[in-house]
Amino acid sequence: MKVVVIGGVAAGPKVGSRVHRLCPDAQVTLIEKGEFLSYAGCGLPYYVSGIVEDQKELMSTPIGVVRDSVFFRNVKNVDVMSRTEAIKVNRKSKEVVVVELQSGKEEKISYDKLVFATGAKPVVPPVEGVNLKNVFTIQNIEDSEGIKAALSEDKAKDVVIIGGGLIGVEMTEALAKKGCRVTIIEKLPQILPMLDGEIAYQVTQYLETRGVKVKTSTTLMEIKGIDKVESVVTDKGEVACDFVIMSVGVRPNVSLAKDAGLEIGTTGGIKVNEMMQTSDPDIFAAGDCVESVNLVTGNPCFVPLGSTANKQGRVAANNVCGFKDVFPGVLGSTVCKLFNFNIGRTGLGEEQARQEGFEVETVLSPAPDKAHFYPEAKPIMMKLIVDRNTRRLLGLQAVGLGVVDKRIDVAATAITSKMTVDDIAHLDLCYAPPYSPAMDNIITAADVARNKLDGIFKSITPMEVKKKIDKGDDFVLLDVRSKGEYEQVHFKDSLLIPLGKLRERLSEIPKDKEIIAFCKISLRGYEAALILQAAGFKDVTVMDGGIVMWPYEKVVK
Amino acid sequence: MKVVVIGGVAAGPKVGSRVHRLCPDAQVTLIEKGEFLSYAGCGLPYYVSGIVEDQKELMSTPIGVVRDSVFFRNVKNVDVMSRTEAIKVNRKSKEVVVVELQSGKEEKISYDKLVFATGAKPVVPPVEGVNLKNVFTIQNIEDSEGIKAALSEDKAKDVVIIGGGLIGVEMTEALAKKGCRVTIIEKLPQILPMLDGEIAYQVTQYLETRGVKVKTSTTLMEIKGIDKVESVVTDKGEVACDFVIMSVGVRPNVSLAKDAGLEIGTTGGIKVNEMMQTSDPDIFAAGDCVESVNLVTGNPCFVPLGSTANKQGRVAANNVCGFKDVFPGVLGSTVCKLFNFNIGRTGLGEEQARQEGFEVETVLSPAPDKAHFYPEAKPIMMKLIVDRNTRRLLGLQAVGLGVVDKRIDVAATAITSKMTVDDIAHLDLCYAPPYSPAMDNIITAADVARNKLDGIFKSITPMEVKKKIDKGDDFVLLDVRSKGEYEQVHFKDSLLIPLGKLRERLSEIPKDKEIIAFCKISLRGYEAALILQAAGFKDVTVMDGGIVMWPYEKVVK
Repeated sequence: MKVVVIGGVAAGPKVGSRVHRLCPDAQVTLIEKGEFLSYAGCGLPYYVSGIVEDQKELMSTPIGVVRDSVFFRNVKNVDVMSRTEAIKVNRKSKEVVVVELQSGKEEKISYDKLVFATGAKPVVPPVEGVNLKNVFTIQNIEDSEGIKAALSEDKAKDVVIIGGGLIGVEMTEALAKKGCRVTIIEKLPQILPMLDGEIAYQVTQYLETRGVKVKTSTTLMEIKGIDKVESVVTDKGEVACDFVIMSVGVRPNVSLAKDAGLEIGTTGGIKVNEMMQTSDPDIFAAGDCVESVNLVTGNPCFVPLGSTANKQGRVAANNVCGFKDVFPGVLGSTVCKLFNFNIGRTGLGEEQARQEGFEVETVLSPAPDKAHFYPEAKPIMMKLIVDRNTRRLLGLQAVGLGVVDKRIDVAATAITSKMTVDDIAHLDLCYAPPYSPAMDNIITAADVARNKLDGIFKSITPMEVKKKIDKGDDFVLLDVRSKGEYEQVHFKDSLLIPLGKLRERLSEIPKDKEIIAFCKISLRGYEAALILQAAGFKDVTVMDGGIVMWPYEKVVK
Repeated sequence: MKVVVIGGVAAGPKVGSRVHRLCPDAQVTLIEKGEFLSYAGCGLPYYVSGIVEDQKELMSTPIGVVRDSVFFRNVKNVDVMSRTEAIKVNRKSKEVVVVELQSGKEEKISYDKLVFATGAKPVVPPVEGVNLKNVFTIQNIEDSEGIKAALSEDKAKDVVIIGGGLIGVEMTEALAKKGCRVTIIEKLPQILPMLDGEIAYQVTQYLETRGVKVKTSTTLMEIKGIDKVESVVTDKGEVACDFVIMSVGVRPNVSLAKDAGLEIGTTGGIKVNEMMQTSDPDIFAAGDCVESVNLVTGNPCFVPLGSTANKQGRVAANNVCGFKDVFPGVLGSTVCKLFNFNIGRTGLGEEQARQEGFEVETVLSPAPDKAHFYPEAKPIMMKLIVDRNTRRLLGLQAVGLGVVDKRIDVAATAITSKMTVDDIAHLDLCYAPPYSPAMDNIITAADVARNKLDGIFKSITPMEVKKKIDKGDDFVLLDVRSKGEYEQVHFKDSLLIPLGKLRERLSEIPKDKEIIAFCKISLRGYEAALILQAAGFKDVTVMDGGIVMWPYEKVVK
């Protein structure tokens, strides 16, 4: 059996190696346009920042052997043609036409099974100046080398990052660590569009404490400069800079597949079935070039990630070799480190869930990530998205200085198995003070969701409270924190009655008005609401997430 | 409704608070024998070590309010009787007889619903000398104060810890951090009996690098001393010491429940149904005094943990108030920090799974916990226990310097939802280099399990290899690591052929003998086995976990 794999970065080498393991007699050829093979694209920001010192580390096995052509030949029995581009696929004759880029020599390679692992490429917005020197995208090792060279002069640089998505944010950290002054320019009203607005707000706040400028709802118009970039022009003014990173997104590389007549999905990726098989049964595809399925909605989605590429590569290889395997889909699970801040999400966001027709309940739950008396405990802020009808968890977002990836992975596992918040509340997660509170954050958040679904208390989101304030509604914003906490940070118009005094000071609260209770994280706010309800107050709600998750202005000491 | 709760540490206060929230009109009374309420028993080792500086931190809410009687009265509307012991329950008259410990005054308290949250108490072995000064158990704040007082003299102390279970190991860290020289004495052949032998071996090895002496298969005979402890006598000799920690286990406090005629389970805990209801429908029980159900086997088990106590307390309270709720059971999920070493487990161990009649497959999988090129990546060693018939994950154990709690929690969630290794292999866990390899450790381990179940390669455990060596079996132990790695550490009789040279040096390997291939972690060992199989070698296996998980002597440079 002749197996040809087009693409040598993530999914491709996985397919090649696995095919050889399962079918030792197969003749496997890997075609790669670039020079480098099987490198960790996700590691590029860390190479730019110098956390990863040598580019070879990105292309090595865990024990330090570089995965080059010789390695693939000797260990994996895979023939590699690097600096070689596949330019045409003839499905009738089952041949791939390739051209060796240095010599220009063309060659035809026949296949029994063909696998597309052509990846994705950065989108470059069609504005003037994108080809100026020191305007970079981040896709491959050559890009990183370019940025490192531009950084090598011994002065702090002003950098503009166009696009506040995941790569933009990772590059922000890398460049700030190298001493650059970074400005992020984002067209949308928030950075990190995979997060809900109030969660993304927390990231923006954190970035600003680190000296990063974030300009949202700002559109790139032009990049100016003589031979190299000098400034970026937006609809809200001009920003001088020494270089620019373009990270407005990536698009699947599908031109070859399209030319070959393979079906392309609605998201622009190659359409595949669960077996990673394209519309041609002898052609498979895996990694950033394919369209995936969202596990919650069943709808197509495009979520290019190295982790998914590896898993899909294995499934494609299994099916190429006749070992039936299926790749069920993705949840858009994402995690990102930003200095000491951790950012994660999985499943559906609130808006997305509503658009899909779910009747949504949400919980904002801030809490320490470890036992609160353990000195290394750090805060994390979570948002749970729950289906009111089935009580199933639909999504989780979590950000903060504490550990978020653990909670995201538990949520991803729970969402995959269609767990309800009741199931999650009873999970036997491991506990010791250095690892989590006695009730892990996700369990506490699930219990809050259960309380809401069971009607034990009524809550209101900070966004709804803000609307009421803006409309000038007449209600009591009841702060039940201590005086000391109040003095540090509070709202302009609120009534302070510390929780411990509430029972004796009930008479100070008007019985006929709507009461919105809150505290730092709204646990005391919840206790307060129950005390008020028991005392006969009729219209009491708790502001979700407390003052720490309020995504607007506060009065700070 | 009158609700009486006996026990004020973990489950009890949870029950009291929750009952009041759900039924504001209920009259809730909490009876606690000791002085302190609602404290984090799991935090005691950290209080001894000084990581937690003030005992108040263990009894405070996350915002620093001490949970004392006044707090419970004002905030939770719960009446607390501390330093008060419940000595009799009269189920007919629905009364609890209590005695105020200082005055000796007896009183009867009537109840509509009664909740036992009487906890567990340390087992003290019946040997001479257990009552000597400086022989401690670890159960409450008073114990910790005693140890801190004994430590306060300004000299390094020799300490013997009797019992190498979880608490013994946590106290080892606490005392070593205070400058003590610690010896653990354990009756069984290994410490940490909740771990499989080869995993516990890794912990012992680590402890020894930290200067802790571990004496397994050693039985305590007597504790010697004049007024205070001077030495511990075992069946294998005498150990001089300044103080002794008794941590041979805990037993549920059930005497009061037993006297009241409530049903006691086979494990010694109070028998409850899923609603945490005892054999008397008006009496509930939660926390360390009850018997739980193992979620995998459905059999009763006794796993006293603060996390479980909190969850059970909530379920008991819900049912007391007529909101039906069920506590499905536990997995014995456990995590523990030992200096920089992390130890975790969930589900069934290998032996336990076999005893329950499962046909077991296991995987030993050592790997870095983050992208291997990320500088903070640290190794973890995992053992997966899988049911060959259903392909379900039954258990996971993980130890090492890297992050284990995340993998344990994912496994606990997966086991709870009866996921197969195929399901786990396709989980969309979040990935970025600072958090995990592109394929998370648990996904890689699940894929190895799938390869074994599908017959793609045959493996052999280190324990089986050791037996072969001891029997003098004739086989080739094929080391496919590099020469440099070999020189650092290797086996006495092995054949070294680095993987990259294997194809050209096949003739050096006898075709008629059994070949056992391995490398550092047995990933190259697996590649080697496939190369040999393809070359016509018939009897090839891979040693699971490689040389890093070999739990016996090695030749070290």
